[in-house]
Amino acid sequence: MPKPLEGIKVLDLTRILAGPFCTTILCDLGAEVIKVEIPNTGDDARHFGPFKNELSLYFLSLNREKKSITLNLKTDEGKAILKDLVNKVDILTENYRPGTMEKLGLGYDVLKKINPKLIYAAASGFGHTGPDSKKPAYDILAQALGGIMSVTGWPDSPPTRVGISIGDIAAGLYTAIGINAALFQREKTGLGQKVDVAMLDCQVALLENAFARYQVDAKNPKPIGNRHPTVTPFQVFKAKDDYFVVPIGNDKLWVKFCTIVDRKDLITNEKYVTNATRTDNIETLIPIMEKIIIEKTVSEWIELFEINGIPGGRINSIDKVMSNKQVLARNMIVEVEDKKIGSLKIAGNPIKMSNIPDSKTRKTAPEIGEHTAEMLSKMLNFDKARIDKLKKDGVI
Amino acid sequence: MPKPLEGIKVLDLTRILAGPFCTTILCDLGAEVIKVEIPNTGDDARHFGPFKNELSLYFLSLNREKKSITLNLKTDEGKAILKDLVNKVDILTENYRPGTMEKLGLGYDVLKKINPKLIYAAASGFGHTGPDSKKPAYDILAQALGGIMSVTGWPDSPPTRVGISIGDIAAGLYTAIGINAALFQREKTGLGQKVDVAMLDCQVALLENAFARYQVDAKNPKPIGNRHPTVTPFQVFKAKDDYFVVPIGNDKLWVKFCTIVDRKDLITNEKYVTNATRTDNIETLIPIMEKIIIEKTVSEWIELFEINGIPGGRINSIDKVMSNKQVLARNMIVEVEDKKIGSLKIAGNPIKMSNIPDSKTRKTAPEIGEHTAEMLSKMLNFDKARIDKLKKDGVI
Repeated sequence: MPKPLEGIKVLDLTRILAGPFCTTILCDLGAEVIKVEIPNTGDDARHFGPFKNELSLYFLSLNREKKSITLNLKTDEGKAILKDLVNKVDILTENYRPGTMEKLGLGYDVLKKINPKLIYAAASGFGHTGPDSKKPAYDILAQALGGIMSVTGWPDSPPTRVGISIGDIAAGLYTAIGINAALFQREKTGLGQKVDVAMLDCQVALLENAFARYQVDAKNPKPIGNRHPTVTPFQVFKAKDDYFVVPIGNDKLWVKFCTIVDRKDLITNEKYVTNATRTDNIETLIPIMEKIIIEKTVSEWIELFEINGIPGGRINSIDKVMSNKQVLARNMIVEVEDKKIGSLKIAGNPIKMSNIPDSKTRKTAPEIGEHTAEMLSKMLNFDKARIDKLKKDGVI
Repeated sequence: MPKPLEGIKVLDLTRILAGPFCTTILCDLGAEVIKVEIPNTGDDARHFGPFKNELSLYFLSLNREKKSITLNLKTDEGKAILKDLVNKVDILTENYRPGTMEKLGLGYDVLKKINPKLIYAAASGFGHTGPDSKKPAYDILAQALGGIMSVTGWPDSPPTRVGISIGDIAAGLYTAIGINAALFQREKTGLGQKVDVAMLDCQVALLENAFARYQVDAKNPKPIGNRHPTVTPFQVFKAKDDYFVVPIGNDKLWVKFCTIVDRKDLITNEKYVTNATRTDNIETLIPIMEKIIIEKTVSEWIELFEINGIPGGRINSIDKVMSNKQVLARNMIVEVEDKKIGSLKIAGNPIKMSNIPDSKTRKTAPEIGEHTAEMLSKMLNFDKARIDKLKKDGVI
């Protein structure tokens, strides 16, 4: 059985993070993703660390399995070639600042006339409409403006950034949903459409019930460290050797916990008898918990918890994630072979589907323009002389 | 033009957060989502705060616009009705602990025989395969095991949870991608498939290039507060009145910044002349920056930056997000009217598509079983007598 998007061609003008994160997902779903890069310099991310043997692993992690062609979109010939390619693909993705494609004469309104079946997906900082549309955006700006920084971290620390680029990544994920929905609809209508996703909008969509909470008591939700706002005890504690998570999600687990630590007095203490009272009395409960938990190592606790059916979990560092048995069993660490750096382990595909064989490897990321000649010949029937001329003229 | 998923029916057995987050997206894309709830108690989230007039706004935020039927899946009649419904829908979603549906005799292997076109989407903590598959999961456990907590927060603070339930939400997003891809493929093959998404897998997929970084120097990436790992100065600073983000992403912006603050000496100082040297000398640069930034208020800085083409952004609290002009212009705050609580503002749909009219309102969330009679009559032709009997027997 072919993969879900097998046969689908993506002309991928995206760079850096949000767009490439999206098109990596399309790759894993089976699409053929053809990166369109600026001749010589290419995707900016090729120049971002970490590096190994001068190869950007930042770039490799986000562009494995894709193809790369170069095309100078500032030349008339480059534009003409792009338009011809638009006729041969299903999807065009871009994450330029809004207005850039229009200025090049390559906006959706132009391209849809060339190929009405085209799905045009744009991921941008602020979206293609609204007063701030054309402002530049960075991940940390989206995190700051979108509210997530105001609820992450500690009551006494400055506003805290989420440790991954959730501003970019969320936009990549939502764009991937929109593209797939547009592909489905195109099967029925025969028509493409524009998908317009903004980093800021996506941050807003991730805020869970923060808006509702604010409307109940007119108080802004604040950062509360690593505990749960309404379930107690449900947070990180320090054991003898390290931190770990103790998520006691209900009263039954609380009774179990108190029993195994020989503190049955806590079960009957009316301050701690239900989750609601435990949350009300969190100020006194946490010091009691801390004294109990510090007595054993994380391994001892995890073992004791497991025997007694209490959940608990380590705070895995990156090396521990990479060697976690469940992560490995789910094939979430895959290997890329690259002639410059040898083999590299990167994240696998979390969308497990009946029709996606769970491959343990990925092809490496392309060199700049590695597939230019091949794709121009295959997709547009260009011959060698023409390709050589385009190269000489700086078009590709 | 209809919405992308108009006409698509989802039998939604999901509860709490990850699953309902996914099916809310399907709603916004035009699908009809029919929640299947346990008679009387319903989705656990109905009992989670915040509340207004005894209505859970946690539940409402995640289930607006859906329908609700009750069905006791532990009874033979309830199972039979579910199987009949499976024949009438396109998608079944569930986020039970793996094995639960099989124990009920309602696993994918059984249901696909009833309806080979069915797309069966399961979101779970650890996935439907692997040694930890059947373990219970919570958001904080996924965040802890998946590595994101090890890179979020401050060097001197305990491991820090992301302030939203990114463990659940990421699984909801990836499940939505898988479902849409399966819908697209079904148009070609006529067959459904199983989509199996794990919270832990999704956390791994979000880690950007953390794996690559670890493989370069065998050092685990650590939390670094609110600054960028390789771009400087690119972080939160404290102005006279409040914190804000100063993302100086390149040398050109650095020159502009130094010029407007009348510190041209910093431009020529070899310690700070390029982004690379600024990052190398971050320890001395940040105190200099702090002294500069504290001199003006955030408003003064933002105005000065805007005039000079330097990006900068406020750390918006939730109320500020809700009144942000761009957020409002993008229709990212929508209104729900509910007879119990009046009107409530919630997050809108961040996937802007040509074929999705940008409605400023959403229907409220259903009461438990509000649509049971209607749906059983419409989908299975049950008459009133039969429905009354089922109610009396505790099946619905």
